[in-house]
Amino acid sequence: MVDVINPERGPVGLESYYHYDLAAIEVHKLVVSAEKQGYDGVVIACFGDPGIEAAKELVKIPVVGMAEASYALARILATKFLVISDCDTAVPRQIRYLKKLGTPDYQYAVIQIGLTVLDIIDDREGARDSMITKCRQALKESSAELIVMGCSAFSGLRSGLEQELQLPVIDPAVAGLHVCMTLVQMHLSQSKTLTYKTPPDFEIR
Amino acid sequence: MVDVINPERGPVGLESYYHYDLAAIEVHKLVVSAEKQGYDGVVIACFGDPGIEAAKELVKIPVVGMAEASYALARILATKFLVISDCDTAVPRQIRYLKKLGTPDYQYAVIQIGLTVLDIIDDREGARDSMITKCRQALKESSAELIVMGCSAFSGLRSGLEQELQLPVIDPAVAGLHVCMTLVQMHLSQSKTLTYKTPPDFEIR
Amino acid sequence: MVDVINPERGPVGLESYYHYDLAAIEVHKLVVSAEKQGYDGVVIACFGDPGIEAAKELVKIPVVGMAEASYALARILATKFLVISDCDTAVPRQIRYLKKLGTPDYQYAVIQIGLTVLDIIDDREGARDSMITKCRQALKESSAELIVMGCSAFSGLRSGLEQELQLPVIDPAVAGLHVCMTLVQMHLSQSKTLTYKTPPDFEIR
Amino acid sequence: MVDVINPERGPVGLESYYHYDLAAIEVHKLVVSAEKQGYDGVVIACFGDPGIEAAKELVKIPVVGMAEASYALARILATKFLVISDCDTAVPRQIRYLKKLGTPDYQYAVIQIGLTVLDIIDDREGARDSMITKCRQALKESSAELIVMGCSAFSGLRSGLEQELQLPVIDPAVAGLHVCMTLVQMHLSQSKTLTYKTPPDFEIR
Amino acid sequence: MVDVINPERGPVGLESYYHYDLAAIEVHKLVVSAEKQGYDGVVIACFGDPGIEAAKELVKIPVVGMAEASYALARILATKFLVISDCDTAVPRQIRYLKKLGTPDYQYAVIQIGLTVLDIIDDREGARDSMITKCRQALKESSAELIVMGCSAFSGLRSGLEQELQLPVIDPAVAGLHVCMTLVQMHLSQSKTLTYKTPPDFEIR
Amino acid sequence: MVDVINPERGPVGLESYYHYDLAAIEVHKLVVSAEKQGYDGVVIACFGDPGIEAAKELVKIPVVGMAEASYALARILATKFLVISDCDTAVPRQIRYLKKLGTPDYQYAVIQIGLTVLDIIDDREGARDSMITKCRQALKESSAELIVMGCSAFSGLRSGLEQELQLPVIDPAVAGLHVCMTLVQMHLSQSKTLTYKTPPDFEIR
Repeated sequence: MVDVINPERGPVGLESYYHYDLAAIEVHKLVVSAEKQGYDGVVIACFGDPGIEAAKELVKIPVVGMAEASYALARILATKFLVISDCDTAVPRQIRYLKKLGTPDYQYAVIQIGLTVLDIIDDREGARDSMITKCRQALKESSAELIVMGCSAFSGLRSGLEQELQLPVIDPAVAGLHVCMTLVQMHLSQSKTLTYKTPPDFEIR
Repeated sequence: MVDVINPERGPVGLESYYHYDLAAIEVHKLVVSAEKQGYDGVVIACFGDPGIEAAKELVKIPVVGMAEASYALARILATKFLVISDCDTAVPRQIRYLKKLGTPDYQYAVIQIGLTVLDIIDDREGARDSMITKCRQALKESSAELIVMGCSAFSGLRSGLEQELQLPVIDPAVAGLHVCMTLVQMHLSQSKTLTYKTPPDFEIR
Repeated sequence: MVDVINPERGPVGLESYYHYDLAAIEVHKLVVSAEKQGYDGVVIACFGDPGIEAAKELVKIPVVGMAEASYALARILATKFLVISDCDTAVPRQIRYLKKLGTPDYQYAVIQIGLTVLDIIDDREGARDSMITKCRQALKESSAELIVMGCSAFSGLRSGLEQELQLPVIDPAVAGLHVCMTLVQMHLSQSKTLTYKTPPDFEIR
Repeated sequence: MVDVINPERGPVGLESYYHYDLAAIEVHKLVVSAEKQGYDGVVIACFGDPGIEAAKELVKIPVVGMAEASYALARILATKFLVISDCDTAVPRQIRYLKKLGTPDYQYAVIQIGLTVLDIIDDREGARDSMITKCRQALKESSAELIVMGCSAFSGLRSGLEQELQLPVIDPAVAGLHVCMTLVQMHLSQSKTLTYKTPPDFEIR
Repeated sequence: MVDVINPERGPVGLESYYHYDLAAIEVHKLVVSAEKQGYDGVVIACFGDPGIEAAKELVKIPVVGMAEASYALARILATKFLVISDCDTAVPRQIRYLKKLGTPDYQYAVIQIGLTVLDIIDDREGARDSMITKCRQALKESSAELIVMGCSAFSGLRSGLEQELQLPVIDPAVAGLHVCMTLVQMHLSQSKTLTYKTPPDFEIR
Repeated sequence: MVDVINPERGPVGLESYYHYDLAAIEVHKLVVSAEKQGYDGVVIACFGDPGIEAAKELVKIPVVGMAEASYALARILATKFLVISDCDTAVPRQIRYLKKLGTPDYQYAVIQIGLTVLDIIDDREGARDSMITKCRQALKESSAELIVMGCSAFSGLRSGLEQELQLPVIDPAVAGLHVCMTLVQMHLSQSKTLTYKTPPDFEIR
């Protein structure tokens, strides 16, 4: 059973590191609360994976970001994948994140459609058409073979893209969920010995 | 439902590129046959992922190697993982494979216990003890936080290692199976547009 | 003129991504406030550079992290530098940060002395002795030629280390300050066109 | 003295990993037989270097792939080289191979002319014209300075390309042959201590 | 106080490795002489940083190259910077230098305006216009966010470029000077323990 | 026919970048003179490849450095090679050169025996014994499989090392010579279109 929970506070969209940092604080609370309530694992359902490292520190249940899950699967299915993002600033943010994950340059390309999350929610058909146009051009210019939808607002547009472009498309929310379920079923979780060790219990003023 | 099939021909153990190449030929046949029989996906259950690229070319159902699956999960759960292999030559083979997958140097270390696949099958307890000793030493020297059991003969030794070493251990057969099931459930498979395009139907003399 | 300001809230020490995320929120406020008060630039004086990317987004004056400044200078002065951190978890955090900055493996080594920030503040002499012992051993084993003190609690220990180890030691607080002053004097600041573009003014609930 | 031997079996062209794997089996046999017959060294004359690693394991005489030889020379003669391949799928295959060899991204570009090996053999003049057109465009767009002909079917077209494009062109068959002769004359061969150790003599069913 | 000294001998412009090597010999003498005269630090004011490594060996005062200084600052201010060079051969020279410094591919792009140093000195307005046109096009095609003027002959053109292109532009001479002053003020210099150890006093015939 | 020519001037040994720069000037002259005298190619017989890039610019005949040639062959014969250098400072110089050539970290290790070129020439037996001891230890600790003798003073010690260590050893002078002859026989030389374009004929004061 999967429950979808929205943080009570935070920005209505996440399109900057500033928004990610604000969201991180709420993610921490929700993750700790999920563990207390007995959930088996947590997916952070924003493509920026905000607060992911702290979340992995704070609990013993597996925490999976939808971007890291999508990239893990994409690398198994293709030599090079194309990330389609919403707006211009998402491009360097995704490139920096791909680098933090250790992804080599030749395995990805990142493009954007020049719309905000809110634009996309307002006009999904327009967003889909724009995605198809931009992807088509990028696929011609690069040798990408698979598309990762790089914004959670794109959820639901996968089948349209697959039909038009005739290649696999990864819906990050679905990827995050399945990778998390895999970890739960395998009784695996983030290692708690070093990077994701439980934080020391410092006084917080 | 999972069926385990052994190729009818091939070497009794795979401990060289030569053995991998011999196994690849059999893997091709089994993968094509599996698709014809209606299987939803295939896992290649040797840690060297022999024939993996050709297998992905030959069918439309997802084909997953147990090494690539293990590495994909390991990178989500830790900054650095330790691969424990059977014999000395497995070390450069795994390093070369990790490089072909695009894994940066700081994310892994590879060690070995100096036994062949056949030795391990003969004396599993000895193998387990040797693994524990070698891993303990390697964990002290590196900053690895998770272990990938780098030989399918190690299957079944996970819980012993986890108890002794107190960190997550990935059993590659289980990882391969779960990643494959994930792909099947997500209706995803290797992209057939470029790297894994169906081979042209050349005459084979 | 340099003013040193402590955030009013936050953990007393920063030794996890969780603490970094908590600190980031306060860093944002201080940075915005600093710009409003007419400061010419800001240095984030924690070696983890918490909130650095959002801070660069939020203002037009230059924002410099003391780790990124130290690493920039270290790479000019040596082929390989040694980062000496406080505690075990700081090692993967620094490695991940060095990677996010694009630093290749052969240019650095990271070690730690097994003390928390609070331990170091309590017993500075003990910390210094421990640093010298650990650095000496690491310098023998690697070919590092310069030391970056990887924790702001080490501030003030530079001259002792330089005398004992006879090589350059970078005090990160001083590095951060000087690199920031350099940018101010050169009328340079983070580019506001893409990565550090001012965040869109989304409603924050 | 150089003898050219064709395997008795195998696909008439090699344009997929599947074909490479089929060819590998024949390459093994020919290499072992060559050593027994007293040859001093072996060149694998397909640009994919099929079976190269197993071949190096199976014998003590030097085995050289024509792609690895071409790339080794190209890197001495230019900062960036251009590989011109036959068909679309050869592009990711060559990129993956360049990566397995450890070649950094900025040192190469790979393009293709959209013909199969059989097409090229049928219409060599058309192939040559197509190569010249594609190379000219790619040279304008990249900063490549040297061309590696990335298919053994291109053999013989070197001088035409050099005259038209006015830069060095490497014929891979010639490169493979000369690098192999160099190793023979230097009494050098692949190291047999680890990666290319003789395979253990497992029973092959 | 800053003194600007020209070597007495050497080529009138530096547009090849040959010119760099000729300049290096003069740089050595000037650097040694500067230290003897009591200067606190030295900036090598040619964008190729000719003789930089030997210069760091020969003296104890800090020696800074204007390219390495510019790149160090650029990486703090942007994810990706654009280097605008004078002539075609400067492009691979800068790429090779960026690689020697350990800069990853995704952090830079290098373009050129097709003029020699002498052309630029003759017609600065023409050079500036050409720079603006070329940068504008390159900024559209890449995701660069900051410009490094990659030739000392461009000195003085910064403000014009900044006004036209609306992003930060680094004047390398100014960057070299400020980074050098920073090192002097911090009492830091190149490590003399390994890479930049004083050369052994061999007889020079 | 091979002629060995010593520059008339320059340091008696090359153990710093300063010495390399001094040697470069003489290398230029000898290379230009060699081309005028009708030589077919040139090998620079110092393991630092001093002046290599300028030398490639100055002539049309192939110029090969003995280090770049050795590394090119080593990468074909082993996954990882061990460079044995003379003195401590040679280690970072070789690492920086390997990086400039684009060699990934996992393919090499560099060690040294703590002797100067002059020491080695004085006591070749002592040098050989020291090399064997150091290599043995390094081979145990790393997974290197082949040795590159990283100093021209080691010439002639190859067979002793091969007998003791039982793995291939590359004598760089021999490697340089054979790679150069290969290029001559293949009618190949450095590309003159970009990196190694003939330098513009600037006035040299």
